[in-house]
Amino acid sequence: MNGQPNPRLFSFVGGAAGAWRVVSNRAVAGEGIEPVERLSVEAGLVATMAADARWCLRGVTSHERYVERVEKDQLVATQAPLGRPEAMCAAFIPIRKSSDWWALTQDERRRIFEETSHHTQLGMRYLPAIARRLHHCRDLSVQEPFDFLTWFEFAPQHAAAFDELVASLRATAEWAYVDREVDIRVIRDSTSQPGER
Amino acid sequence: MNGQPNPRLFSFVGGAAGAWRVVSNRAVAGEGIEPVERLSVEAGLVATMAADARWCLRGVTSHERYVERVEKDQLVATQAPLGRPEAMCAAFIPIRKSSDWWALTQDERRRIFEETSHHTQLGMRYLPAIARRLHHCRDLSVQEPFDFLTWFEFAPQHAAAFDELVASLRATAEWAYVDREVDIRVIRDSTSQPGER
Repeated sequence: MNGQPNPRLFSFVGGAAGAWRVVSNRAVAGEGIEPVERLSVEAGLVATMAADARWCLRGVTSHERYVERVEKDQLVATQAPLGRPEAMCAAFIPIRKSSDWWALTQDERRRIFEETSHHTQLGMRYLPAIARRLHHCRDLSVQEPFDFLTWFEFAPQHAAAFDELVASLRATAEWAYVDREVDIRVIRDSTSQPGER
Repeated sequence: MNGQPNPRLFSFVGGAAGAWRVVSNRAVAGEGIEPVERLSVEAGLVATMAADARWCLRGVTSHERYVERVEKDQLVATQAPLGRPEAMCAAFIPIRKSSDWWALTQDERRRIFEETSHHTQLGMRYLPAIARRLHHCRDLSVQEPFDFLTWFEFAPQHAAAFDELVASLRATAEWAYVDREVDIRVIRDSTSQPGER
């Protein structure tokens, strides 16, 4: 009953505080999310929000649901970590998939995700420039408004490449199952340190 | 922040109350769990346990992680619901899988789960006699001691078949990755109604 927060849990708090300054907040599909000035990325569960915080979205990192061994080995060999000093830009993209998606079986979801939409292959083209961390929300104890939160970090010179990546993903068959998506772009304060929240 | 409990969340409370009387409690692998007299199966989050409750394990039902379309169609056609009047016996089996399991990729886990261990096919042999509900704990907001909680219900005349099913599963390659397992058997009070907690 008195368990510790899941060590893979992260909270994204939108409000007036945090190392990341919001430069855009766009509803791509479905309902948007309240505009805020800043975003704070916190390890663990934010039990009580600061008075000036407007929302908190949470998710856990987890094992891969679709990636196969050959793909994982390629990813591990080429991916970059979060917190690189040059990665002053980031994107926070919460999405929800439709009930149709969740009613599919594993083989059907994998076929749409990779064989048809090439999700992993598309992302791999932008490694190591774009670092990424995926968080799952659907199976948290408390019902959350999104199924996934993805956090991306990149240097300013890769911002156009990032736009190309998300445009490619949004054009896939997989994205027909995305019924809510918000795209929030942020920039790290020049006064804050890499890795700071 | 003030979200509702996940509607797919269930709590299993061990203590002095509940419609199910514990008849055995065995540590199959790893650490056991404190013996209790009764088990209560509750929909939702049990925020505050009764004074005489000893433990509470929680999990969410979710989409299938390995089952493919042909298998799902077979399952749907043959499975029985929980709460049948004749299903006076039940088993509550929490398990945890090792970090080796979680480091595997989807294709590797599927291969062990089904192509090698025939998990779904094995279970299917005992349908509709044995009804089952699987709950996931690993990605809850709070760290839980198990990865999965499975709840099985069956009539007394199928108790031997159930023992055969769990023995078969424990002999599979998949079970080499189970590093903690507890097997709790319960009987519904004759005074309680089917479906009562």
